Amino acid sequence: MNKEFQEELTARTRQVEAVIEKYLPCAEGYQKTVIEAMNYSIQAGGKRLRPMLMWETYRMFGGRSEVIEPFMAAIEMIHTYSLVHDDLPAMDNDEYRRGKKTTHAQFGEGMGILAGDGLLNYAFETAARAFELEPGNSQIGKALYVLARKSGIHGMLGGQCVDVEAEGKTVPQEMLTFIYSLKTGALLEASMMIGAILAGATSSEQKQVEQAAGELGLAFQIQDDILDVTSTTEELGKPVGSDEKNHKTTWVTLYDIDQAKQEVERLSRQSIEHMNTLVVKNEFLSSLMIELIHRKK
Amino acid sequence: MNKEFQEELTARTRQVEAVIEKYLPCAEGYQKTVIEAMNYSIQAGGKRLRPMLMWETYRMFGGRSEVIEPFMAAIEMIHTYSLVHDDLPAMDNDEYRRGKKTTHAQFGEGMGILAGDGLLNYAFETAARAFELEPGNSQIGKALYVLARKSGIHGMLGGQCVDVEAEGKTVPQEMLTFIYSLKTGALLEASMMIGAILAGATSSEQKQVEQAAGELGLAFQIQDDILDVTSTTEELGKPVGSDEKNHKTTWVTLYDIDQAKQEVERLSRQSIEHMNTLVVKNEFLSSLMIELIHRKK
Repeated sequence: MNKEFQEELTARTRQVEAVIEKYLPCAEGYQKTVIEAMNYSIQAGGKRLRPMLMWETYRMFGGRSEVIEPFMAAIEMIHTYSLVHDDLPAMDNDEYRRGKKTTHAQFGEGMGILAGDGLLNYAFETAARAFELEPGNSQIGKALYVLARKSGIHGMLGGQCVDVEAEGKTVPQEMLTFIYSLKTGALLEASMMIGAILAGATSSEQKQVEQAAGELGLAFQIQDDILDVTSTTEELGKPVGSDEKNHKTTWVTLYDIDQAKQEVERLSRQSIEHMNTLVVKNEFLSSLMIELIHRKK
Repeated sequence: MNKEFQEELTARTRQVEAVIEKYLPCAEGYQKTVIEAMNYSIQAGGKRLRPMLMWETYRMFGGRSEVIEPFMAAIEMIHTYSLVHDDLPAMDNDEYRRGKKTTHAQFGEGMGILAGDGLLNYAFETAARAFELEPGNSQIGKALYVLARKSGIHGMLGGQCVDVEAEGKTVPQEMLTFIYSLKTGALLEASMMIGAILAGATSSEQKQVEQAAGELGLAFQIQDDILDVTSTTEELGKPVGSDEKNHKTTWVTLYDIDQAKQEVERLSRQSIEHMNTLVVKNEFLSSLMIELIHRKK
């Protein structure tokens, strides 16, 4: 990563953090605990990748209003709720994430469930505040539909369900691609599509962006499989070798590391090509997409 | 309950069921199991009270379009998700509801969590389909915001969280009223408000309806407390005496049965009075509200 991009990335991450912060619920009233648990989960950190992709896509298509902001916060809430519920004892049963106690480990299992529910629900409450900002903007309804569709059973949640059911089984490539596309790809698609929709991109531009984001998501997830084998726990900031331990089918177990690397290359080239067909450009977004695919952690 | 009202209620419940059915997701694809679990939960039955209140309020204010339908299905999905997650081992740990196995008892704990998440998410996906039905209708955004707000941490979910935390403790009346207003009242408020909003009711009419629904919810919940003490398991269709067993503070433990009955009377009179201030009338809705408050099961 070159220094200039690194500095830009740090600055923009801070801006995204400020937007998310602005839309967090206030921890007050009798229901203070659940709100604290929700905010704890969001503030535990992360790359803020999804709101950043959304914002950059929005800017690329000429978007300039704050109507994008509630959607940026909303997608991060949805991403976070999925982690909170994934970590639950009945799911992956993880006590730590990013070096901090997971939500249920900190607040108890019942509150972990409720905080996840709270985040998912509050994501839509937050996104719906966009209607107040721009009552006459008919794109908001479309953006909200995409947010819900890509998060739900035909998107991220659907991918997680298939992933849970596939545990311990040998998964054919077609199914693995399906899981990755939904579990990881769908929220990236939502992020970039919502940016495009709210900025007034045409339907065909929205489709190009969806395609590029889907390929990015797939490449991102295969890179995850590679890092789980080739990286160190220190470098990655989480235990490596977890896929093997959990007997998970990954791109690396289906093929081998070299083939997985080739697939990441192929998908990232395709994704960039899809972005290049657009008349509008955003150099930072292109660098970010390339960086994500070739990341070392 | 007089025979005429009973017949009308049966007929309208069937109509509501048909609307809900129309919006259920199709159980197909790799993620079939979670969709089956979602539909199992919804099809386990229930009074369909919330979508019915919504529809009748919509009709009362002259609403005639199918734009109300996705919201009717959505509110039933939200009500159902809350039951599915409430029944989980880390929450109330109930194996049976309405004589059928609860979702997690039938599909496993992990799938119980995911099915609840799926229902909450799909509720918003479904409600957002209203934008496609009437793209220019600016009331839809408001209705969606109310749906999210009244379901979330400042509505139903907030009430549940306080309820969970209050378990085993003595709860003062102010806090009990807060819990009931949110846990039970908020979704009834959402139901009737959304009906009013989508039918184009004025702000002050929306407020009257919200007030009436809130009082209805409170009366409904206190009646629940009374029935838990005075009814039989056979009549109620679920175990009686569960509040005492769980050391719960209820209106009956805070006061006594007679005082609780008086409070139900007072609230129901207030609720009806609020409805009577409206220029529009819906006789079936009034009968339904009275019936709910004085129900024996």
